[in-house]
Amino acid sequence: MNIPRSSFPRIVIIGGGFAGISLAKRLRNKNVQVVLLDKHNYHNFQPLMYQVATGGLEPDSIAYPIRKIVQEYKDFYFRLAEVREIDAENNILYADIGELKFDYLVIATGSKTNYFGNKEIERNSMAMKTIPQSLNIRSLILENFEQALLTNDIDERHSLMNFVLVGGGPTGVELAGALAEMKKAILPKDYPDLDVRKMEINLIQGSDRVLDSMSENASEKAEKFLLDLGVSVWKKVRVTGYDGKTVTTNSDLSFDSATVIWTAGVQGALPHGLKGDSFIKNVNRIKVNQFNQVEGYEHLFAIGDIAVMSSEKFPLGHPMMAQPAMQQGRLLADNLIKIINKKEPKPFEYKDKGSMATIGRNKAVVDLPKFKFSGVFAWFVWMFVHLFSLIGFKNKAVVFLNWVYNYVRFDREARLIMRPYKKRSNVSFTSDEL
Amino acid sequence: MNIPRSSFPRIVIIGGGFAGISLAKRLRNKNVQVVLLDKHNYHNFQPLMYQVATGGLEPDSIAYPIRKIVQEYKDFYFRLAEVREIDAENNILYADIGELKFDYLVIATGSKTNYFGNKEIERNSMAMKTIPQSLNIRSLILENFEQALLTNDIDERHSLMNFVLVGGGPTGVELAGALAEMKKAILPKDYPDLDVRKMEINLIQGSDRVLDSMSENASEKAEKFLLDLGVSVWKKVRVTGYDGKTVTTNSDLSFDSATVIWTAGVQGALPHGLKGDSFIKNVNRIKVNQFNQVEGYEHLFAIGDIAVMSSEKFPLGHPMMAQPAMQQGRLLADNLIKIINKKEPKPFEYKDKGSMATIGRNKAVVDLPKFKFSGVFAWFVWMFVHLFSLIGFKNKAVVFLNWVYNYVRFDREARLIMRPYKKRSNVSFTSDEL
Repeated sequence: MNIPRSSFPRIVIIGGGFAGISLAKRLRNKNVQVVLLDKHNYHNFQPLMYQVATGGLEPDSIAYPIRKIVQEYKDFYFRLAEVREIDAENNILYADIGELKFDYLVIATGSKTNYFGNKEIERNSMAMKTIPQSLNIRSLILENFEQALLTNDIDERHSLMNFVLVGGGPTGVELAGALAEMKKAILPKDYPDLDVRKMEINLIQGSDRVLDSMSENASEKAEKFLLDLGVSVWKKVRVTGYDGKTVTTNSDLSFDSATVIWTAGVQGALPHGLKGDSFIKNVNRIKVNQFNQVEGYEHLFAIGDIAVMSSEKFPLGHPMMAQPAMQQGRLLADNLIKIINKKEPKPFEYKDKGSMATIGRNKAVVDLPKFKFSGVFAWFVWMFVHLFSLIGFKNKAVVFLNWVYNYVRFDREARLIMRPYKKRSNVSFTSDEL
Repeated sequence: MNIPRSSFPRIVIIGGGFAGISLAKRLRNKNVQVVLLDKHNYHNFQPLMYQVATGGLEPDSIAYPIRKIVQEYKDFYFRLAEVREIDAENNILYADIGELKFDYLVIATGSKTNYFGNKEIERNSMAMKTIPQSLNIRSLILENFEQALLTNDIDERHSLMNFVLVGGGPTGVELAGALAEMKKAILPKDYPDLDVRKMEINLIQGSDRVLDSMSENASEKAEKFLLDLGVSVWKKVRVTGYDGKTVTTNSDLSFDSATVIWTAGVQGALPHGLKGDSFIKNVNRIKVNQFNQVEGYEHLFAIGDIAVMSSEKFPLGHPMMAQPAMQQGRLLADNLIKIINKKEPKPFEYKDKGSMATIGRNKAVVDLPKFKFSGVFAWFVWMFVHLFSLIGFKNKAVVFLNWVYNYVRFDREARLIMRPYKKRSNVSFTSDEL
């Protein structure tokens, strides 16, 4: 990888998400050599991806070049690389662009969609974990409407206008709300020769409430908001299959749909090479101690979504969100410096700053540790927090401008099919990995 | 295509570029049925594409959804369609989504890159006529720098950092300037472990001056600006081949380069089915009379880049630019109404409003009919004119914000590889047609 050794110990970080970037920033100019690897050259702001998928924001404004973040960091190297395998015994990793020795390795590879082994669903449904996937969803929604215009077959048209979102977590709920707003304000104007009232949005949740990681108050309010917007919410229903035409469930409920968006599960994006007892097999997440040290290894650490730090309060690990990832990244930076200087590291303690979700215009739910609320004020809080969490002044300004414009004009102008998702032949699909 | 006949005559327009959109807008609610076909669902602003290719602007801000433009037009239909063939004798056209009868057909399909039959150059070089192509160039530039970091082979590194732009028209000149500014202000900060001074930008022009469609004053100033920015300008040189490694020319000059951007020729994007004497074979452009009527057909019209209206002042037709296209579109709208009402149409007369090109920060050349100037003021005029030519308030605002930011910060933040152009294997390439 053409990275010269310096006199400082080398820390290699895999992944430039919330966890990896927080760690890298805190290690700036700290008498260590840092190598950051990511398969993309940008950091992206996942919480706003659903707005890219529904034409509310352009993808560039929720992405930020990693090299720009780390400009002027001393003894710092970024490489665009895909890690293939870790040889933890010999402190070496293998990537598509070559191999690299490390003194300390931090795995911050995040999570990816979990289909729980159902290959049929994996093949036929859409995921929304990356920007290209979000753009694919944007294209597919619009292509379906273009196609619905062309058919006189009522069943086909219904299927093209029937959107099934599997998973009632924040992503599914926010996406459902955004689709419902498109149905209300935009699509009837764009497709006057189509009866857009017939568009359906079905949100399917396995447990007994949406947003089940939030308070019951939030779940209740969110469901009410969704119903007000015309979303059909199905609880205690599990999707069992989707052949590209019909969604089957564990009840006698089924849906004919051309578009299934799967947000019902995540798993760790686990790199190869770790010992089998250092991670939890069914979810591919790495077991770490309270210093984010990987079980069974001294020089290996894992932070963010990929890491499971079991504690009394969080027996299954912390929630897979930005906050724990960032807090772990920052603490690990301090702890690595301590470890290098033979000092005692500090155990991680999660400070829950709360969680929130937006369902639509003036509609959001916010759970703060001591206070839960919803509605217009929650919606402003949601916007404020997300705006200020974006990296970079220009991204903040462009997103703000878009939001003001969309709010005032009841519009979303980024409804562009820049890269068609469906080939015109209606048979072959482009890879959603690009 | 599921378009019901109304009591009004049907005008079908192929192409939503400057010509087609100007025509469609002017035909709004004019007692005609209008069907607009385009293979994209957006209109794009070609003059700013080079800024997308060099990370200065995000693609969404130079594109605008066609359906949004024509919202609320009466008896108006847009269809996302690729036209396969025209049967002008029977007033019918065939597209990928079906066939359509027309009373009047307007061909506004614009132009595409012309490689003059050289398949090798076509296969190995990059074009910049569409937004996906511009994004491919953006990806390739950045991927080359990432790759240059990894090699210790001086020749390979040189080739990766050597950019050859073929064609010294506005596109080539503007792209060369933008690349030179990246070299100066951005790349050295992004790639501190690379000697970016070694980056080369070679602009190759067949004739004896760059911008040869503009005044000699403009050519001279533009060349001076380019040289000041460190661009090597080669005049009276024709590129004869490019095998993906070495650019050969008609002199003994040759260049080892991983990136060749071809802007040296355009041809009409001619639909199939016209009689052989109605178009000019080597450039695939359609011969029209002064009413933009296609030679040999009464109900067929062609406007914009695809049309050649030979006149005393313009024996080879008008310049292939936005202005003639828009003027022809607007006049043809009026003329079609006249023709339908059995009135005398008005012959087209081109009002030259001037032309301009920007080379970089504070550097532009402007030719007005009575006045030619260059430098800072020209640059402001260029920005003002381009900003106000963009469709939509939000796009104007976002572009303005980007420009102010880029100017103040000497930056371009859209340097994101969202869709890799090179596969990591370095062998297969993605299609540039998507």
